[in-house]
Amino acid sequence: MSDLLRIAIVGFGEIACRQHVPAIAKTSGAALVAVVDPVKTPPGLPYFRDLQELLRDGPEIDAIALCTPPQLRQALAAAALAAGKHVLLEKPPGSTLSELAPLIAAAHEANRTLFATWHSRYAPAIGPARKLLASRTIKKVTIIWKEDVRVWHPGQTWIFEAGGFGVFDPGINALSILTEILPQQVFVRSAVLDFPANREGPIAADIELSDEDGLPIRAEFDFRQTGPPSWDVVCETEAGPVTLSKGGRQLRDGNRLVVDATDDEYPALYRRFVALTSEGKSDVDLAPLRLVADSFMLGRRRLVEAFED
Amino acid sequence: MSDLLRIAIVGFGEIACRQHVPAIAKTSGAALVAVVDPVKTPPGLPYFRDLQELLRDGPEIDAIALCTPPQLRQALAAAALAAGKHVLLEKPPGSTLSELAPLIAAAHEANRTLFATWHSRYAPAIGPARKLLASRTIKKVTIIWKEDVRVWHPGQTWIFEAGGFGVFDPGINALSILTEILPQQVFVRSAVLDFPANREGPIAADIELSDEDGLPIRAEFDFRQTGPPSWDVVCETEAGPVTLSKGGRQLRDGNRLVVDATDDEYPALYRRFVALTSEGKSDVDLAPLRLVADSFMLGRRRLVEAFED
Repeated sequence: MSDLLRIAIVGFGEIACRQHVPAIAKTSGAALVAVVDPVKTPPGLPYFRDLQELLRDGPEIDAIALCTPPQLRQALAAAALAAGKHVLLEKPPGSTLSELAPLIAAAHEANRTLFATWHSRYAPAIGPARKLLASRTIKKVTIIWKEDVRVWHPGQTWIFEAGGFGVFDPGINALSILTEILPQQVFVRSAVLDFPANREGPIAADIELSDEDGLPIRAEFDFRQTGPPSWDVVCETEAGPVTLSKGGRQLRDGNRLVVDATDDEYPALYRRFVALTSEGKSDVDLAPLRLVADSFMLGRRRLVEAFED
Repeated sequence: MSDLLRIAIVGFGEIACRQHVPAIAKTSGAALVAVVDPVKTPPGLPYFRDLQELLRDGPEIDAIALCTPPQLRQALAAAALAAGKHVLLEKPPGSTLSELAPLIAAAHEANRTLFATWHSRYAPAIGPARKLLASRTIKKVTIIWKEDVRVWHPGQTWIFEAGGFGVFDPGINALSILTEILPQQVFVRSAVLDFPANREGPIAADIELSDEDGLPIRAEFDFRQTGPPSWDVVCETEAGPVTLSKGGRQLRDGNRLVVDATDDEYPALYRRFVALTSEGKSDVDLAPLRLVADSFMLGRRRLVEAFED
């Protein structure tokens, strides 16, 4: 293995082009050396139609970054670990919780890094929010996570297919923030999921969560937002509201603006990946995925109007 | 604490009357000393309308056996652990996975036993089946778990409500057997869930599972069975089929009948509970519940005919 972490992106969709390519370019100690995609052809990089072709014919790699739809990740991650490669999983890390257990075991056995990423946790206001809340008594949490699916997920037909999570695909970002900024464990108390008549995944969800002391936490997810998105988490505290907005790029303590920074999620995430591989560690926190699974299991289903792209 | 484990049953429904009461009576080192139920009155035992009333006015107890519908368990288990009582959870241990994490932490902190039971794992043929399969190569697993909901769940309206699991209430027994008899970890690949138009929970489910090596595992759950129930797990092996039937009371190796025993699940389960409390240990295996959550999250939903009791 060279000093450089040689990475292949597997699944060259929206998130790979827009986030992973520039982030790897900014990361010292990492280099993008190949791309795997059944259809798309990135400019200026060796590309392969599938992972087996890359492993057989491609340049030497140390790691793959798995950016395919979640339904495809388990088999690809298992194959990459079996070939001795580190694996970074885009969020959500899979389409089930149970598929992760054998992957964790395989990574451990192969002495390779498995990194289940939650990119929203690397937004610039998340660390400061966690620190600020640690000194406060939280009375209530409200999460509003609403965006126009036509604007933010163009052409991502898998998102409304079984295992694609529907509105929980962005919603899980909010849950990854919630479970990062609160020190205590939370669980789902009830949920209502709105399924369009012509889709397999929910287009909206209302979720009530709590901690053991009954802290009221409410999350509203909606893909039918028009206009600008709402990506906000408001924690009411004894000293006023602590507000995360713009998906974790802004933090307000009462009216005072504490953080207002540009997006640096993916470069921070790749710095962590490089550090994990050099320390020989894995990082797989399934708490956000568990909350989604629980919402599906516990949730009441409501049939709503068909959704056409 | 006395030498005897003094138990209160909380939730005096079908399973409590039919299984827990006689099982505790058969268990040396355990005694049933009270019952909590908002409606039912058991003959010859102190009873209380809710757990708080029992803890305030009742006889001394060391443990509770939680037999309420799963939607109510988290708050009751948390209160009992906070009062220093051991807690036995009927299956499923809760209506979400995430509610279990704080309970595990609370039990650990209070130095009390939390026992998430899977009664089907104590059926007499399960241990022998696990041993037999350890020496075989399994090629395929087929689970057929079908019963008439009108016969087996009379008056259990909660079963079709959100968080009541529908057909997964019996189906999780099959999954608890599967995860007990196979040495390797398994995960859900796809699922189809049939929801009656007038119910919140599924009445039938077809689930495809697998291990990392692609072992095909298929489970069919159905509440619309008429006539005798089918509670069978068939493992095709290189030396012929290994068949568990009657919910784990019978085991066949090929045509040879290896085990044919009467039901002894709950007494075995209470012997384990007494042992756990005296050793100061907990036992919380969430694998079966995880497979159910995954089936809900990954599963395609089909709307089927309304179901009337």
